[in-house]
Amino acid sequence: MTLILALDFGGTKLAAAVTQLGSREWLRYERRLSPIDGNATTDLAIMRSLIYSLLQDATPDAIGVSFGGPVDFTTGTVRLSHHVPGWENLPLKDLLEKEFAISAIVDNDANVAALGEHRFGAGEGYDSLFYITISTGVGGGWIINGQPWRGNAGMAGEIGHIVVNPAGPVCLCGKQGCVERLASGPYMAQDAKEYLFKPANQLQGQQLRSLVNDNLDLITGQIISQAATQGDELAIKILQSGAWALGVGIGNVANLINPQRFILGGSVTKAGEIWWNTVQKTARETALPEIDFEIVSAALGDDAPLWGAVALAESALISK
Amino acid sequence: MTLILALDFGGTKLAAAVTQLGSREWLRYERRLSPIDGNATTDLAIMRSLIYSLLQDATPDAIGVSFGGPVDFTTGTVRLSHHVPGWENLPLKDLLEKEFAISAIVDNDANVAALGEHRFGAGEGYDSLFYITISTGVGGGWIINGQPWRGNAGMAGEIGHIVVNPAGPVCLCGKQGCVERLASGPYMAQDAKEYLFKPANQLQGQQLRSLVNDNLDLITGQIISQAATQGDELAIKILQSGAWALGVGIGNVANLINPQRFILGGSVTKAGEIWWNTVQKTARETALPEIDFEIVSAALGDDAPLWGAVALAESALISK
Repeated sequence: MTLILALDFGGTKLAAAVTQLGSREWLRYERRLSPIDGNATTDLAIMRSLIYSLLQDATPDAIGVSFGGPVDFTTGTVRLSHHVPGWENLPLKDLLEKEFAISAIVDNDANVAALGEHRFGAGEGYDSLFYITISTGVGGGWIINGQPWRGNAGMAGEIGHIVVNPAGPVCLCGKQGCVERLASGPYMAQDAKEYLFKPANQLQGQQLRSLVNDNLDLITGQIISQAATQGDELAIKILQSGAWALGVGIGNVANLINPQRFILGGSVTKAGEIWWNTVQKTARETALPEIDFEIVSAALGDDAPLWGAVALAESALISK
Repeated sequence: MTLILALDFGGTKLAAAVTQLGSREWLRYERRLSPIDGNATTDLAIMRSLIYSLLQDATPDAIGVSFGGPVDFTTGTVRLSHHVPGWENLPLKDLLEKEFAISAIVDNDANVAALGEHRFGAGEGYDSLFYITISTGVGGGWIINGQPWRGNAGMAGEIGHIVVNPAGPVCLCGKQGCVERLASGPYMAQDAKEYLFKPANQLQGQQLRSLVNDNLDLITGQIISQAATQGDELAIKILQSGAWALGVGIGNVANLINPQRFILGGSVTKAGEIWWNTVQKTARETALPEIDFEIVSAALGDDAPLWGAVALAESALISK
């Protein structure tokens, strides 16, 4: 029996699971929230306890790891985490290989989730796909010619920072009108808040205001989706603007790379019909008419990185 | 001696050459202008005469073909030519294979030029590159993982029709602010003409006007470059706007695919320092700071499609 250990270091949660090679079900599975004041050391300690609890007396044959931040894939070294301090240049692959005396492969979460969806989810049987996560950030991972494409320096997939409106609002990256600036949950919430705080707009966004009991600081991407479903005009406008930005991004990618499928995951994809329709329509209008593609929802949900980690570990076993 | 026949069906010219497998020089080479009132039949007749003149009594071992328009790569059938009538659904690969009783491979000119630069030019030794031609149109061809990437339906590389300014002028494709709408030679000329025709602007564009003896219909992309070099403010502004659009496109592509190199060819790349500096600067500002890439000039010039056709024919010999 060939045992695979899959690890997911997310920004806010840690998950680990074991499965048998070729299986599509977990043998055992554990998930914990990352401590709020945590750092790389506490995350590693928690993950270690999850692993030993999962493995019991068994020894895995390979380890696959999804990490929520940029990773140097060739060395398996984490560059940094945008959420948790202390990860800078941490040689995660080496640490795991030393502790367990087996091969470990580490990659960033968008690439790993793309691989998970390709191997076990909405991308099965597709030779080319782009997986996009739309959540606190917007990022993507590639399958091209049936293989992950990470880019020359492992930086491919950054659809969040392509410019779709050079006259748009300023993004954290310094540019204006990036997809992430318009389409991510926190930025949509920020735009709603800033608009509603203005005295001139105090009669607008009634459903939004009532969902947060007039405490505008409580507005999130999810609240905006809820308000839009209830017909709140401001919420609909902001949601459509985010979906438009993502749709232009997807249409541009279709023109550039012509993948078979776009697979969308992350919390913002739960925003409902208004959001999905705008994404589909805008992408179709942006792509050339002769370029075909499908935009579908991710199938594996929060487990996409873990199943992608299984696929990474499989590749380690095959290349041995 | 293994002989390769390379053919280039351009929009306005026809070229053919023969070389030995492994050589970097032509044994013989012929080039003709395509007749102005020509069609697919006349182009094929001219090409046939070039081929027999080149081959003399020799028999080639494989044929590689670059075609200036969309091609179904798997069947080698031309979809259409945007310049010459009569090419619709013409089975070019089959025609050549029947006439010469050897393998022929046909692909569109941007893909073939990318392959040529990769195998023999500015892309030698690079595992990932994007070749962009900026001329009457704007198009591109991919090398990813050392191999051509044509997209799911052979439509990858259409950087000309990614949107960089949704508030920009309307493109032939129906969208606003495509790269091609801003950066191609004919569109730059059109923008200059329309501006200068307006009575309010009759004191502007003096160098431009004098280069065409006040016949504004004679303005071309090349004339704009010349006027810009002479300091014409309108010409500089239009050239920079085109270079800006291309630079945003390149920066977006760097974020999405992270190739090692961008290789630029086509007549507009001869526009001089103002153009090149704006492309480089804008691309650098659009790409995330941690994403490295180089933008260089094509090395093979007008012969890139022919040398790419040689590389196509080589792959036919290898896969036999």
